[in-house]
Amino acid sequence: MIKVSVLYPNKPGSRFDMVYYVDKHMPLAMRLLQKGLRKTEVDAGISGTAPGEPPAFHGGCQLYFDSIGAFAEAWGPAAKEIQADIPRYTDVAPVIQFNEIKLTV
Amino acid sequence: MIKVSVLYPNKPGSRFDMVYYVDKHMPLAMRLLQKGLRKTEVDAGISGTAPGEPPAFHGGCQLYFDSIGAFAEAWGPAAKEIQADIPRYTDVAPVIQFNEIKLTV
Repeated sequence: MIKVSVLYPNKPGSRFDMVYYVDKHMPLAMRLLQKGLRKTEVDAGISGTAPGEPPAFHGGCQLYFDSIGAFAEAWGPAAKEIQADIPRYTDVAPVIQFNEIKLTV
Repeated sequence: MIKVSVLYPNKPGSRFDMVYYVDKHMPLAMRLLQKGLRKTEVDAGISGTAPGEPPAFHGGCQLYFDSIGAFAEAWGPAAKEIQADIPRYTDVAPVIQFNEIKLTV
């Protein structure tokens, strides 16, 4: 199993509409990526660990697929519509990476 | 439920021993934080999304607790031993933040 992690950097002054992201964008993305999507988790950043420290990321999501290939197959036909929706909730580009899940306990 | 996300930036030239992290450090951390720790996931970064792009993070972990307070209670007595172990596998400081889980499907 692999995990695609999508994180939106909390740059000073940047915009992120968490309500739109959770209520509109993620349901759209999950519907468009449903072929092969095993699990989805959506997070909202609360804070860093130091008192008063803002979170490094506004939040983001983790998308679980059997393989990078399975993700790519789902992403191809969905990419255009998902990407076109991003400016509706943020003006920052997400940091996206593929992870191997080493342990789940 | 909250999620403590711990991510190790993949700075050029930085060191990260994933074998030690998965086999030694995380079992130590999970044992020391067991009071209140609901779930743990450990990831190894594979790549970014562009061809040949390295992952933004070497990897990291997500620690699930009922609340930030429950994490703080577990972390207090465990912090010293966990932090002393970090130089054994990396020379980068992790980015740590608290997240609210908005959706798990």
